[in-house]
Amino acid sequence: MAKLSGFPEHTPRERIVEQAVLDHLRSTFELHGFASVETRAVEPLDVLLRKGEIDKEVYGVRRLHGEDKESTLALHFDLTVPFARYVVEHANELDFPFRRYQIQKVWRGERPQQGRFREFTQADIDIVGRDTLPFHADVEVTQVMAEALGGIIALTGGTGATLQIANRKVLEGFYAGLGLADPTAVMQVVDKLDKVPADKIRVMLADIGVDDEQADQVLALAEIVTPDTSFVERVRALGVEHELLDEGLDELAQVVGSVRAPENVTVTADLRIARGLDYYTGTVFETRLAGYESLGSVCSGGRYEKLAADNRSTYPGVGISLGVSRLLAALLADGLTASRSVPSAVLVAVSNEAARAEAAEVAAALRSRGVPTEVAPKAAKFGKQIQHAERRGIPFVWFCGDPHTVKDIRSGDQVEADPTAWTPPTGDLRPQVLAPRLSSTPSEEKQ
Amino acid sequence: MAKLSGFPEHTPRERIVEQAVLDHLRSTFELHGFASVETRAVEPLDVLLRKGEIDKEVYGVRRLHGEDKESTLALHFDLTVPFARYVVEHANELDFPFRRYQIQKVWRGERPQQGRFREFTQADIDIVGRDTLPFHADVEVTQVMAEALGGIIALTGGTGATLQIANRKVLEGFYAGLGLADPTAVMQVVDKLDKVPADKIRVMLADIGVDDEQADQVLALAEIVTPDTSFVERVRALGVEHELLDEGLDELAQVVGSVRAPENVTVTADLRIARGLDYYTGTVFETRLAGYESLGSVCSGGRYEKLAADNRSTYPGVGISLGVSRLLAALLADGLTASRSVPSAVLVAVSNEAARAEAAEVAAALRSRGVPTEVAPKAAKFGKQIQHAERRGIPFVWFCGDPHTVKDIRSGDQVEADPTAWTPPTGDLRPQVLAPRLSSTPSEEKQ
Repeated sequence: MAKLSGFPEHTPRERIVEQAVLDHLRSTFELHGFASVETRAVEPLDVLLRKGEIDKEVYGVRRLHGEDKESTLALHFDLTVPFARYVVEHANELDFPFRRYQIQKVWRGERPQQGRFREFTQADIDIVGRDTLPFHADVEVTQVMAEALGGIIALTGGTGATLQIANRKVLEGFYAGLGLADPTAVMQVVDKLDKVPADKIRVMLADIGVDDEQADQVLALAEIVTPDTSFVERVRALGVEHELLDEGLDELAQVVGSVRAPENVTVTADLRIARGLDYYTGTVFETRLAGYESLGSVCSGGRYEKLAADNRSTYPGVGISLGVSRLLAALLADGLTASRSVPSAVLVAVSNEAARAEAAEVAAALRSRGVPTEVAPKAAKFGKQIQHAERRGIPFVWFCGDPHTVKDIRSGDQVEADPTAWTPPTGDLRPQVLAPRLSSTPSEEKQ
Repeated sequence: MAKLSGFPEHTPRERIVEQAVLDHLRSTFELHGFASVETRAVEPLDVLLRKGEIDKEVYGVRRLHGEDKESTLALHFDLTVPFARYVVEHANELDFPFRRYQIQKVWRGERPQQGRFREFTQADIDIVGRDTLPFHADVEVTQVMAEALGGIIALTGGTGATLQIANRKVLEGFYAGLGLADPTAVMQVVDKLDKVPADKIRVMLADIGVDDEQADQVLALAEIVTPDTSFVERVRALGVEHELLDEGLDELAQVVGSVRAPENVTVTADLRIARGLDYYTGTVFETRLAGYESLGSVCSGGRYEKLAADNRSTYPGVGISLGVSRLLAALLADGLTASRSVPSAVLVAVSNEAARAEAAEVAAALRSRGVPTEVAPKAAKFGKQIQHAERRGIPFVWFCGDPHTVKDIRSGDQVEADPTAWTPPTGDLRPQVLAPRLSSTPSEEKQ
């Protein structure tokens, strides 16, 4: 049975790592009061296609024996378009500003390649207002995602991440101040800076009517990257003036100056970031993970003045989307793993099938205190039962008797224990995520 | 924008109820050592159709600009077929017997109606062996699902559920002992007993060659329902003998006699249960929820001697599937709700925009101790900020100052509090699920 290219599936051990990452994201988002939303997997095709020229990437969906021979529905390809539709559809049931997180799979028909999947999980946070949305929402989503990233890095043994923040108003205002007629076209060229050498960028700029002196200024702006608000002075030093530029600099300084990132996350003002093909109107975000620069941005987003609209209102929003699957695939490929393949902390051994009921009682007693426990499937030799635990990474094997004993199969220590009182050390209660550099310790190699 | 019929979406408050139910299921399954598996949403069409005549219900999926004009992929319509495929595909990476839970959406193109959706969530548990699977696995999945159901009923204020268990071997053995040539055909007729009156069933039985005396016996067997192992004697009293019947009675007695159900769940031997159209070979399960009998079975499954097979092995399995969406929709329609629409336990008020940084610091201090907290979006009058909390059901509003104070907006009590030490009562830390009969207490009606 051939695997479907682009539709990866995790082993149970990998899935435990994924669950730990998703649990951490949920917990961070909820600590900040973001509510969970799930939208249906399908949208009417016309809702999805409204956003632009993306129909090549879309999976159409239709009832095989339905009346329509053509697809009128399609699988969503991101979580922003469905969320915008959800906001309008449920506007009367929501309280604005509305803060939601959404962790779901999305589908794209792109050619599968390293780190690019056809089915993958995204984790989005957005704050959306009705008619207005205060600017500090931009600071807030940055703060939340910085904490979310910091936790993932701590969990997975990573070294760090950089949240790169820019503001469309800075770029557009600067280009307008330079007298350039089509700031958006310039932005789309600048957006290619990390893939195309500067001399080719100059040629492309010339092609859209940017003269040499203007091009110097455009490229000088794009070189400004600071981990604090000093970018403001550096932009000022270029001598360009425009009202929109002032507004953008003020906004960007608020974000970079206010966010208190965890120590493994750096928040920078980075004026290379343009996100030229998206419809952002202010703050824009990208994120690079140290050691995984080839992944590109793992976490991107920005401010939309009009995320959605209905007959009565517009809904401005600001949000960031984390590419969970892409990030996880890279980390798993480098050896990120879990300490076991099952939730069980304890395997209760069974000396003979007649004693299974007693083993089940011990297991029930342990579970009643929150200890994940399974009972051996077969009254095999104890050596075999210990092997059963070892293969799965279950740390403890329980032997019923008078007295009962429990064995830590990693150390070989075996002690008397009371099924109505014993609990494992906290660190053994749940499977642990083992960072790549820790995952080949001697105790793991035994398995 | 018209809603898509059959693709329901929850409000944030409803979603909190759903999250509580799903969290409970996950926690129960993991306490029993079941590992989480997620399979991709799509399967090759031929894998899905292999199971039988279900192609009318399937949603085909294809890249709109792909080469194939016809769908070669389809959305899965249950979690059993994808799991069987996963077991074969990942057999070398799994340890058998393999115990997994799987909570995912499935899609069926059926006509939407009361409690029948086109997109819905199922929660499945299965134990699968390689070549053999001990019978006590049947007892184990029953035990786990009884506990899962008990917890859901406790959480949602329900009165009870009945797990109805039968065994194909009892029915087949009994029919064979009666001298009936086609036990499966008889089972398919008996399976209609809860929809078709007994006299019509007699006609249908006569049509497939069952004589009057045999029909009496067939119907007498189907009347046997006991909450304990006394069904064995009642079957014996009918005087039919067959080896397969003996085997089935022994198995069924093991399940009904061994499971220790929580007090709100009754486990019965119920010989009406045939599940005539499924490919079960031993134990079969259905479940009725007290007060929601019209939903039919909310939780069904059974034993397959051959869940899957590859060139080297067969994979017997036993599992049960809980229809989460169907159950939840019925309970939500009856008024099941959550105490709030956001995770936040505390709203930190903002006296003026210059004081937002201080409010953010208080919020960070509360979050560092696990208290979900949000900061007011606008430095409006305090009355408005309290309204903001009330609308969302947030129980506490924090006022920065010297001293800081925190107000329980339900009682109106306001006390001095230290942001580095205060925590809400445990019951207020997370949103609570409010059972229908509790959900219209005076404090809720204010909202």
